[in-house]
Amino acid sequence: MIDPARLSLNLMTVDHWSLAEAVERCASAGIATIAPWRHQLDAGSARTIRDAGLAVSSLCRGGFFTSPGADDDNRRAVEQAAELGAPVLVLVCGPPAGTDLAAARATIAAGIERLLPFAADHGVRLGIEPLHPMMVGERSAIVTLGEALTLARSFDDPPVGVIVDAYHVFWDPRLDDELAGAAGLIAGYHVSDWLVPTQDLLAGRGLMGDGIIDLPRLGGLVAAAGYDGPVEVEVINPTLAAVPGDELLADIIARFARAA
Amino acid sequence: MIDPARLSLNLMTVDHWSLAEAVERCASAGIATIAPWRHQLDAGSARTIRDAGLAVSSLCRGGFFTSPGADDDNRRAVEQAAELGAPVLVLVCGPPAGTDLAAARATIAAGIERLLPFAADHGVRLGIEPLHPMMVGERSAIVTLGEALTLARSFDDPPVGVIVDAYHVFWDPRLDDELAGAAGLIAGYHVSDWLVPTQDLLAGRGLMGDGIIDLPRLGGLVAAAGYDGPVEVEVINPTLAAVPGDELLADIIARFARAA
Repeated sequence: MIDPARLSLNLMTVDHWSLAEAVERCASAGIATIAPWRHQLDAGSARTIRDAGLAVSSLCRGGFFTSPGADDDNRRAVEQAAELGAPVLVLVCGPPAGTDLAAARATIAAGIERLLPFAADHGVRLGIEPLHPMMVGERSAIVTLGEALTLARSFDDPPVGVIVDAYHVFWDPRLDDELAGAAGLIAGYHVSDWLVPTQDLLAGRGLMGDGIIDLPRLGGLVAAAGYDGPVEVEVINPTLAAVPGDELLADIIARFARAA
Repeated sequence: MIDPARLSLNLMTVDHWSLAEAVERCASAGIATIAPWRHQLDAGSARTIRDAGLAVSSLCRGGFFTSPGADDDNRRAVEQAAELGAPVLVLVCGPPAGTDLAAARATIAAGIERLLPFAADHGVRLGIEPLHPMMVGERSAIVTLGEALTLARSFDDPPVGVIVDAYHVFWDPRLDDELAGAAGLIAGYHVSDWLVPTQDLLAGRGLMGDGIIDLPRLGGLVAAAGYDGPVEVEVINPTLAAVPGDELLADIIARFARAA
């Protein structure tokens, strides 16, 4: 059972709303923390969020270190996170350019190293998010929690963290052991559920309780590793756009209490 | 570069053909070894294959230990493998029944233990195939090579093996280390390619050379682990049904020489 006050709504869950609408609806529903994505931001977003009294748990996303222009774009992402008061910039690290996964992983490590001083200057922690291995070709060569932790540990000043997203890591037979060694390294915890059958590699996620992830157990392991920060609900599924907004947020709050 | 004589055609690649047609086409094309699936078999299949002078590298599939009736069905699969002269029965181990992955993994281990004496009596080796983690909900709680190896090592008399399918394991940052410790445990090696983008969780595989798997490198690691048996081409993709049969087999043979 996670303290309901720790719920943060990752706004990809409601990407069919404008940021202003999401802020207003969250404030009304009693959700005090949000996590926007960069494409949802404009020049007034920081003020909109602040004026509504909401906190920001993270900004999603920087990364894509294997793409041209990544350094400039990542510095801009750090600046945006700082403007929003987001303590963490989530890194989706980028896919291999061709068949060489080891080279991609080295490129990612070097990119984080270059970005780190700039992030530290802005008071933003970098959070490496391992994605599900089915996303290796399009989104991330970093596909296991163990790999993300090893990478995070290779930087110690300032510390780099990892983002534990239940959807991306629940399948891993090494998960318990990796989390047992993750104290101090968890910079965020995301929840959703894995539907059976899963029919879409990107946008087929379920609301907590509708799938096969043992979220209470995973949440316990994350807590045992010392993480007590915001817990983002991030459910990427276009069918949610058909649910009336008040109903959707009430359902998310109820499921967070019951199934996360 | 793999000896072309080691090519075995996994018949799921040509599931749009009857077994008799597949046998005839393979024999004509100079493919000397095949790997049928059970749903493709009938009472005359063993003779059809033998009369054409073809060998069988494996039978796919037993497993699904987490489903009711698995034991009876698996004994039947062992008998079918023996009838075909298949040295290996590929095990797709089955998904969790609910949210308890650890319980599913224990059920799978117990199921293999029960099946093993029967398989040994029939001269059939069991090959545990770890599937890609995106298949955890529908097909297999065994999703990493490391986990499959640990499970295989827990049985030593008779030995149980693992099936290394490039498509299922290529993403794993631990792959090199796991293969380095896999001597004597590899009971089969399957090749195909991971397309970018991948749009189907089951049937979106590519022909060797069309995707991002560094097959020559992976093949080298498998060879270094001492595996010198048949190499199955298993490309599950319904678009292959549109390619004329002679052309498809010629393309597979050429790609096996060039890109596997």
